Amino acid sequence: MQPRHTAQVLIAGGGLVGSLLAVMLRRRGLQVTVLERRPDMRKVPIPAGRSINLALSDRGIRALKAAGVFEQVAPLLLPMYRRTMHDRQGRLSYQPYGRPDQCINSVGRGTLNKILLNQAEKAGAQIYFNCRVTGLDPAQKVIFTETGETFHYEKLLACDGAFSAIRLYLITTDRFNYSQSYLEHGYCEIHMPPNPDGSWRLAHDTLHIWPRKSFMLIALPNPDGSFTCTLFLPFEGDISFQKISTLQEAEQFVKTWFPDIIPHISDYAQQFATNIRSSLMTVRCSPWNLGEDILLLGDAAHAIVPFYGQGMNAGFEDVRLLCEWADKQGGFFTKGLFPRFAQFRQPDGHAIADLALKNFVEMRDLTADPAFLLRKQIEAWFSEKYPHLWIPQYTLVTFSHVPYRVALEAGRIQDEIMERVLRETADIATGSWDHARAEALMLEGSKRLPAADLVV
Amino acid sequence: MQPRHTAQVLIAGGGLVGSLLAVMLRRRGLQVTVLERRPDMRKVPIPAGRSINLALSDRGIRALKAAGVFEQVAPLLLPMYRRTMHDRQGRLSYQPYGRPDQCINSVGRGTLNKILLNQAEKAGAQIYFNCRVTGLDPAQKVIFTETGETFHYEKLLACDGAFSAIRLYLITTDRFNYSQSYLEHGYCEIHMPPNPDGSWRLAHDTLHIWPRKSFMLIALPNPDGSFTCTLFLPFEGDISFQKISTLQEAEQFVKTWFPDIIPHISDYAQQFATNIRSSLMTVRCSPWNLGEDILLLGDAAHAIVPFYGQGMNAGFEDVRLLCEWADKQGGFFTKGLFPRFAQFRQPDGHAIADLALKNFVEMRDLTADPAFLLRKQIEAWFSEKYPHLWIPQYTLVTFSHVPYRVALEAGRIQDEIMERVLRETADIATGSWDHARAEALMLEGSKRLPAADLVV
Repeated sequence: MQPRHTAQVLIAGGGLVGSLLAVMLRRRGLQVTVLERRPDMRKVPIPAGRSINLALSDRGIRALKAAGVFEQVAPLLLPMYRRTMHDRQGRLSYQPYGRPDQCINSVGRGTLNKILLNQAEKAGAQIYFNCRVTGLDPAQKVIFTETGETFHYEKLLACDGAFSAIRLYLITTDRFNYSQSYLEHGYCEIHMPPNPDGSWRLAHDTLHIWPRKSFMLIALPNPDGSFTCTLFLPFEGDISFQKISTLQEAEQFVKTWFPDIIPHISDYAQQFATNIRSSLMTVRCSPWNLGEDILLLGDAAHAIVPFYGQGMNAGFEDVRLLCEWADKQGGFFTKGLFPRFAQFRQPDGHAIADLALKNFVEMRDLTADPAFLLRKQIEAWFSEKYPHLWIPQYTLVTFSHVPYRVALEAGRIQDEIMERVLRETADIATGSWDHARAEALMLEGSKRLPAADLVV
Repeated sequence: MQPRHTAQVLIAGGGLVGSLLAVMLRRRGLQVTVLERRPDMRKVPIPAGRSINLALSDRGIRALKAAGVFEQVAPLLLPMYRRTMHDRQGRLSYQPYGRPDQCINSVGRGTLNKILLNQAEKAGAQIYFNCRVTGLDPAQKVIFTETGETFHYEKLLACDGAFSAIRLYLITTDRFNYSQSYLEHGYCEIHMPPNPDGSWRLAHDTLHIWPRKSFMLIALPNPDGSFTCTLFLPFEGDISFQKISTLQEAEQFVKTWFPDIIPHISDYAQQFATNIRSSLMTVRCSPWNLGEDILLLGDAAHAIVPFYGQGMNAGFEDVRLLCEWADKQGGFFTKGLFPRFAQFRQPDGHAIADLALKNFVEMRDLTADPAFLLRKQIEAWFSEKYPHLWIPQYTLVTFSHVPYRVALEAGRIQDEIMERVLRETADIATGSWDHARAEALMLEGSKRLPAADLVV
């Protein structure tokens, strides 16, 4: 007979979201048990295959602060203030993310996860590693695991990621709406080492993009002077992973599309030809709860593609909001908390999924498009003049805490307005526009936008 | 050690589609094993909860004929030539399904399934009942079952229905796109007994509809003189299952909305209040195959809502087409058969899912709408004059064998044309239209429709 454990709150998954949640619930005095499928990454190196770079921005930072762990994280962040676009001739252009003081922050997944695991244990959470969930009996409130151990819970939080085992169970329950949808594109990570003196080979206060319409390469800096480059490319087709499987093919591909990286990565052909290729999935589901006791959070509820840099931020925001709701509504065991929170938050999960898909087109295609760049210029000009009337969608998503659905809707309205502004007032060839006409159109159009005082 | 069986072709599911497939593959000399989760319905009554009435139409009949089993089925069919609409005053109106000789056929699910199981066994298929699939190892080509028995297969056909266990495994595989989506509506079956002399209480050569905009009741005849009525109603809301849970509420509900059924169902309040309520789901996925060896068919690949009466017909058509493909392409073990068939057929699964959802609106709402009925009248008039230029969508779906995607697209074009015809030539109040103008518009518009010679 295997041991049967009892947990007041059981968290499935000791990844970023699960371990942050463990910290925050311990701060509220709850008894917290975390089940993690993998070994303890602080003791055993975890095999690669998942993205190792993340972009932490305001939503994530606010949650880390709410948990009291931001001080531990801050020293590891590398701020990125703008996009740096590389064209095929190696010429650079720039696009700021926001105001000069606004940035997103490159951080390693592993480093951050280890800090959060340390903080969770320090706060008193009990973490079981190598403990894969194999089944669930919601009537008995019991989780079964591969080791044979069982865990009785009062509340179960599924923070077990894009391939959540808990969600797989929910799929078999009545009236659970679910979709998982893969991109035609996959991704592959390429390591760019530091210079011999340990310095970065490219500017490190920026996110690098090599936009090539149907595909792209990006690069984020690491604290050790290296960059993690990520190639996003269709799996099949004329220009695809399928077509760069030999060293010669990979060499030709990089020479054709990304020649300026060649001096920086000596084994580039080897890496492009043989590094692991992974798929990209969007998950949407509803409801996020099963009754009063089970709630999906983070990627388990809303796995998204990485192009808005919001996957982790959205998951951290789930955690912060849930804890705030619990605090305001009489605690974590208040009747109706999970159903109400799930219903309230779920549209924002759908919205950030849409935003992330849309930003892929923007990054790989539009950042090299003169009309798009001119639009951004006009928006920046107007926004500086009327900061309370025009907050760009990127700012709403990245540097604010408005619900994602508000950012999605604002962007839709801005798209309509700016399409008209470009059509009626701008000359894309010369990059000029009729300032008075544009201003009038945008002043009028901005009345339809959500009020700036929403942005906190 | 439990026995390990070997099957050349393993069919998961001994329902309608699985047992028909078993017959057809045995006719081709293959060794066929069927695994059925439930007990043998020919020996043990199966608990209710699934729809007991189905509408067999041309696609299904063609498949049954191809399997050589239509002779056994034909005597059990009750032809329905038209819709009979019941308004709140009990007044009737009619809408033919097609030409006077065209009909759909009411048939009991259980009766039909038993015939097909008999035919499958007679043809030499081995059927294991009470044999629930619990796992799958595609690398070893082994199926695990609840009894502990394992089955090695060369080819695995998943005909295990809307809640397919095989598909649940595929959901965990890379790049499998999947969605399950529930309606806000559920359904509940109500039994209308025969008259004391054994005759039907309503006309039995028709499908009865009580369209009430956001909900409806329908009734299909059974051979024993009874009708199976089905109420489709939202689970929650002002008019919903939630609001008819007491006898008084149910009585008031039926008196308000369906008073003309009261004389025919003495325990109507009891039945409406307490009969089992079930949900309605649409499943879409792709690809339908996993490599060379596993293929989803029927509801496992494309569970749809019942409003076009095509669920079984689509599944039977899958079976017929797969067998024809195999025959033409060198047999069932020809390399590439499953991937190619899956890719070819999948858009039709998506199309019939869309059509079924759309027909719910038509049945519950539009069949009581004067503009819609006038449109149908104009279409029938034009179609009679130019039968090769205008085949109504209902006919394409129900009385033809064109791919469902063609029917979907034709309907979309017809909707556009008829919207214009109604707007520009018709007077809905008087039910009249300008014949010359309408004819000209439809002649011009019909050039965009798929050619009638597609219809075989």
